[in-house]
Amino acid sequence: MLLSRYFLPVLRDTPKEAEIVSHQLMLRSGMIKQSAAGIYSWLPLGLRVLKKIEQIVREEQNRAGAVEILMPTIQSADLWRESGRYEAYGKEMLRIVDRHERDMLFGPTAEEVVTAIFRDSVRSYKDLPKNLYNIQWKFRDEIRPRFGVMRGREFLMKDAYSFDLTKEDSRATYYRMFAAYLRTFARIGLQSVPMKADTGPIGGDLSHEFIILAETGESQVFLHEDVLKEKVPSADTNFFGDLSGIFEAWTSRYAATDEIHDNERFEKEVPEDKRVTARGIEVGHIFHFGTKYSEPMGAKVQGPDGQLVVPEMGSYGVGVSRLAGAIIEASHDDAGIVWPVPVAPFEVGLINLRAGDAATDAACQDLYSKLSSAGIEVLYDDTDERAGGKFSTMDLIGLPVQLIVGPKGVKNGEVEVKYRANGERETLSTEAGLNKVIETINSQRVLA
Amino acid sequence: MLLSRYFLPVLRDTPKEAEIVSHQLMLRSGMIKQSAAGIYSWLPLGLRVLKKIEQIVREEQNRAGAVEILMPTIQSADLWRESGRYEAYGKEMLRIVDRHERDMLFGPTAEEVVTAIFRDSVRSYKDLPKNLYNIQWKFRDEIRPRFGVMRGREFLMKDAYSFDLTKEDSRATYYRMFAAYLRTFARIGLQSVPMKADTGPIGGDLSHEFIILAETGESQVFLHEDVLKEKVPSADTNFFGDLSGIFEAWTSRYAATDEIHDNERFEKEVPEDKRVTARGIEVGHIFHFGTKYSEPMGAKVQGPDGQLVVPEMGSYGVGVSRLAGAIIEASHDDAGIVWPVPVAPFEVGLINLRAGDAATDAACQDLYSKLSSAGIEVLYDDTDERAGGKFSTMDLIGLPVQLIVGPKGVKNGEVEVKYRANGERETLSTEAGLNKVIETINSQRVLA
Repeated sequence: MLLSRYFLPVLRDTPKEAEIVSHQLMLRSGMIKQSAAGIYSWLPLGLRVLKKIEQIVREEQNRAGAVEILMPTIQSADLWRESGRYEAYGKEMLRIVDRHERDMLFGPTAEEVVTAIFRDSVRSYKDLPKNLYNIQWKFRDEIRPRFGVMRGREFLMKDAYSFDLTKEDSRATYYRMFAAYLRTFARIGLQSVPMKADTGPIGGDLSHEFIILAETGESQVFLHEDVLKEKVPSADTNFFGDLSGIFEAWTSRYAATDEIHDNERFEKEVPEDKRVTARGIEVGHIFHFGTKYSEPMGAKVQGPDGQLVVPEMGSYGVGVSRLAGAIIEASHDDAGIVWPVPVAPFEVGLINLRAGDAATDAACQDLYSKLSSAGIEVLYDDTDERAGGKFSTMDLIGLPVQLIVGPKGVKNGEVEVKYRANGERETLSTEAGLNKVIETINSQRVLA
Repeated sequence: MLLSRYFLPVLRDTPKEAEIVSHQLMLRSGMIKQSAAGIYSWLPLGLRVLKKIEQIVREEQNRAGAVEILMPTIQSADLWRESGRYEAYGKEMLRIVDRHERDMLFGPTAEEVVTAIFRDSVRSYKDLPKNLYNIQWKFRDEIRPRFGVMRGREFLMKDAYSFDLTKEDSRATYYRMFAAYLRTFARIGLQSVPMKADTGPIGGDLSHEFIILAETGESQVFLHEDVLKEKVPSADTNFFGDLSGIFEAWTSRYAATDEIHDNERFEKEVPEDKRVTARGIEVGHIFHFGTKYSEPMGAKVQGPDGQLVVPEMGSYGVGVSRLAGAIIEASHDDAGIVWPVPVAPFEVGLINLRAGDAATDAACQDLYSKLSSAGIEVLYDDTDERAGGKFSTMDLIGLPVQLIVGPKGVKNGEVEVKYRANGERETLSTEAGLNKVIETINSQRVLA
């Protein structure tokens, strides 16, 4: 992409309304723009990140056997009356009356809609297990939206809903999603830790939050250091086999958010030199809740013995838009964002230090073509801004590798390569620089 | 994808509520499920089609230099008060009051939001032209939603908004979108015809609808036969060059919907043997509307001479979810849907005629692996349903090629290949069948 044809409205100053670093950097780098309180437009750079996160989430859901559907944003209140949640949900639910005076709502979650789909479509135990997921915009009317996309009102969420014949089967599904989440966050470049959680208003008896560690995280977490050394399930894990071992390994040691932290247990179970206290951000939450929705909503299948069975359900959420902010909280420095390659909006920033100079333009165009042909995503700064501005913009938007081309280097057949994560730079022959960039990106695309 | 692990709730009978064939077939083939009046969930098969349409639309927008953003579904009423449309829009706008009693709405379109983004971000003529597009769910509270996704209340739309310094530049942008739309619909497998249109409530002085021809179309259209022979711009068209020739060629002959049809002109301008009267479906609409929004909303840039200039705008819509229905209206038969390859939910249906028979299972598994390795998208019916049911389901869901494998064929080293569009079948050696399927799909993937 040529920057001159792109839309990248960066801000030099930090907007006053932004309290946390991810919000500040997303506004400054032209990733998002507020449209109303807690409601954002995703500008081109931000949307590319969002789509990459979404795609990683999707691929890991598919790998774990979940099947994608898309449920509408506007739901009928009647469905929520069936489950008993319409009155219970409170003011966070955006209630709407349509032109025919029917009560509608903007879905904050979709247990009711998916249970109705299941109820009307699935008749036999032979069709189980089913795990249907959805990546869709949701709305929660937060009383005080803040922290940018970390606690917005309109947000993109992946929510999966599973239906199993027995409690045992549904536990196996829970383990599958548990393992899928470990892979998902690792692929994004995040260290995630599952922590036992309260089930809250969704209900149920088995629930974990996935917390990523970030110095600026919203909550305090306490864990056994060795949890951080557990291995993430590999890509060739058989997701249709027994995954209880993965679950056991990751949950056998102490790990808790401040919400349910028990300091006495912590000190008893964790040797002093293994106690880690850190800050964390919730990016996923999985629940087993049994028949809480299937029972009142009348979802049933015929079992092997001909008897009707009420399926066991679970739900599994990932905050897709929230993750964009969470990654930045976990990966930034004073100059701006530091994107992991798999979610970087572009992989390489190509900087032309003298746009308009024929030789430099030609060298840049050639590198741009070669990188693009090699499947590398390049943002090419072909504008006539001064070098200092170009450098600070590239650092701010955090592309993993910068390739810097100036008239002097072109004369000597050289380019400069800069690695955003550690700030290192090296001058290489043009060909060596090109190859180095391609190798660097390719080696970091798949992190798990 | 293995059918046993998929979610494909097909219906044997035609639902009473569905009046038109696309609605009937989308319900019967398990593509969609109604959730409330005019509001649908997209089940796995439907969602795959929707995503493919969306991706073709996206690629052609990108090719034409438009840049993707994502605007929120919920908008502030204040923005619409600035343009004067809040009161004017009528009951189709879904009006919402949030918990702080602020007036909000579910966006039926996004001229106001995008103009505010532009106003706050773009300062100089050097940043023009800009063309920002958005593929997002919109809501229009139709008084009588019907025809399934063809006239639903919640619908997916691609809407692009252009900003140019001069009328002349904005005309060039209009031609770019005009050409992009011709390519978009051709790539989907549709014959589209641009027709001059009223500009309606969006305003402006230049507007075309893109109509696809389908026997069951919603409106009557009148055109010169030779319009149907015009060439679609090729993929290597220079979209940054002068495209007025394409526009002239496609608009110089008579083509009009019944809304603005002038029979006297039709008979005068079109020789009798060239007069075509047909049924059509609107799938796109482009508008040039000048400063209708930029002026009242105060969007200005500094021109080359230092004076402030109010940019010229246009908007360009494609009904993405509507297209899923429109394709079916244009391409079906008594047995079901007939998908063009580029938008087929899967490209090949592999039918195992005796699931459970070791040799047949092994042959199918081998073909499934080989097709998947060749990059072909396969739905493999590995269930134990009877053959007749499998055949009718495959015909109903309309995958372009079926590969039929039974125990007798396996013994003889043969498979049967069936082409959905013309119903032809041929028996080939397993290897020849495999190659034929791959060639057939590859040759039909790119239609323009």
